[in-house]
Amino acid sequence: MNAELTIQQYLEQQAQLVEAALLASIPGIWDIPQTLRESMMYSLMAGGKRLRPILMLAAVEALEGQIAAAMPVACAVEMIHTYSLIHDDLPAMDDDDYRRGKLTNHKVYGEAMAVLSGDALLTHAFYSVVQAYRVYQVPAERVVDIIEDLSRLAGAPGMVGGQAADMQGEQGLTRLEELEYIHMHKTSDLIVFSLKAGGHLAGANAKQLQALEKFGYNIGLAFQIQDDILDLVGDEKKLGKPVKSDEKQQKVTYPFFVGIEASQAKMRELTEQGKQAILDAEFPFSKRLLQLADFLVKRDR
Amino acid sequence: MNAELTIQQYLEQQAQLVEAALLASIPGIWDIPQTLRESMMYSLMAGGKRLRPILMLAAVEALEGQIAAAMPVACAVEMIHTYSLIHDDLPAMDDDDYRRGKLTNHKVYGEAMAVLSGDALLTHAFYSVVQAYRVYQVPAERVVDIIEDLSRLAGAPGMVGGQAADMQGEQGLTRLEELEYIHMHKTSDLIVFSLKAGGHLAGANAKQLQALEKFGYNIGLAFQIQDDILDLVGDEKKLGKPVKSDEKQQKVTYPFFVGIEASQAKMRELTEQGKQAILDAEFPFSKRLLQLADFLVKRDR
Repeated sequence: MNAELTIQQYLEQQAQLVEAALLASIPGIWDIPQTLRESMMYSLMAGGKRLRPILMLAAVEALEGQIAAAMPVACAVEMIHTYSLIHDDLPAMDDDDYRRGKLTNHKVYGEAMAVLSGDALLTHAFYSVVQAYRVYQVPAERVVDIIEDLSRLAGAPGMVGGQAADMQGEQGLTRLEELEYIHMHKTSDLIVFSLKAGGHLAGANAKQLQALEKFGYNIGLAFQIQDDILDLVGDEKKLGKPVKSDEKQQKVTYPFFVGIEASQAKMRELTEQGKQAILDAEFPFSKRLLQLADFLVKRDR
Repeated sequence: MNAELTIQQYLEQQAQLVEAALLASIPGIWDIPQTLRESMMYSLMAGGKRLRPILMLAAVEALEGQIAAAMPVACAVEMIHTYSLIHDDLPAMDDDDYRRGKLTNHKVYGEAMAVLSGDALLTHAFYSVVQAYRVYQVPAERVVDIIEDLSRLAGAPGMVGGQAADMQGEQGLTRLEELEYIHMHKTSDLIVFSLKAGGHLAGANAKQLQALEKFGYNIGLAFQIQDDILDLVGDEKKLGKPVKSDEKQQKVTYPFFVGIEASQAKMRELTEQGKQAILDAEFPFSKRLLQLADFLVKRDR
């Protein structure tokens, strides 16, 4: 399936699939205040790599599962990711004016609407997951498992916890372990959710679910280290925000603790171990998962 | 069951049951940043009438269902209500320093943490609903129905939509219909969810679910009209915030359109019609539901 596309072509094709589904993800017949709907869609359709949904769909493909039935869950994880960016950009948080070269949500719609559209996207993610059951007959037990994972990995013991630790850590982290806690929860947890949900949807066995989880934590941390490196040395235009914005805000990053070279070595090691976990669990079609792992650490934005 | 308690004693007893469950609702073994956990619990345990959980439990009682299995869902609706108050109080929204006589969340923990603890409570509500299945063996299909209702009635087409319309309406509403839209979504939707979820949990038939929905919309609007009246004429100490704070912010309320007397008549009419719907649907034990409807419009805070 799509085996002949290059990884770049594959990424573009999958992003388009996801964006078509996102465009239709908020029922048109719902009576929603116009500005709220616009504000939600503004950020949901503001581009980005659609990495989390693509990883979920790749996990489904690896098990030769049904892509269409996974799409509502793929949309859900992108809604969660999008709401977290809207709230992160708020003046009280990172106070960013631009994201991916576009004005942030609160710069366009105001702070109050940005808070509310973030809340609405977060809530709507759970509605979207339920549609896998309602529209595609995914068994209710499986959907409940997915909702439990999402609420944990996106919540206080997961992504929000990582974000809170990051915020408090801006006064200065003193240990690498603290930074790894932040990266694990702020970034990896939602990537792990995406991969495990793909596994749940496609009927993965216990060994495969475990492999997807290990793969997720490894490439999640590798992804974040690459992000830290790109922030230090990357090209401003490609990142869509001023380089070193994290350093300016005195954020402590992975290279700060161990240097760029050791960071790159760590990144490669994590990626290889993640890929090995997938190989060991014998998926019917793991090619795209493995390519995605390589892509993440080679990307330049 | 508890038939001998006065409505005041009943309210106190139920609130205590709910608060005991809320206290234990965030697993102690979860590795959550200390300040985030404190900030969540600060608002979750800040008092309040626990009206939505109590209505849910009363619906369960009316159908002679199992209270314990409903408790995780009762906690969930209180988490949603609490997160909405934390975000409403933010400087970018209503900018309130006090709520129920206590400092608001952002006055204690700062704005960023208030945004995050709201996000975390909203997310955790869905985890809590899932526990009805995980711990109390409520069928997965029923739990998925409840999650779909919650995500819709608390989301963009529900509570958040009402909040957005309210915010935009602060520039001046010109029609009573606009105010009723706001009240219906900002207040009634979550009350309707509570009653319907109680029905779902206790195996209500279609007629009973419909009656719970009508009852919910009626007492929800009556509740909100009473709130508007209390804001105009109520006693400052009992409300825990300065009287007329809504008028000061030039919010348009129900009495603004039709006067206090007609508002009170409307309130009584809504309550009677709501109670009649319950009586017509023949619940095995509807006494507490009916008493709660009366209590809501007679309360002085």
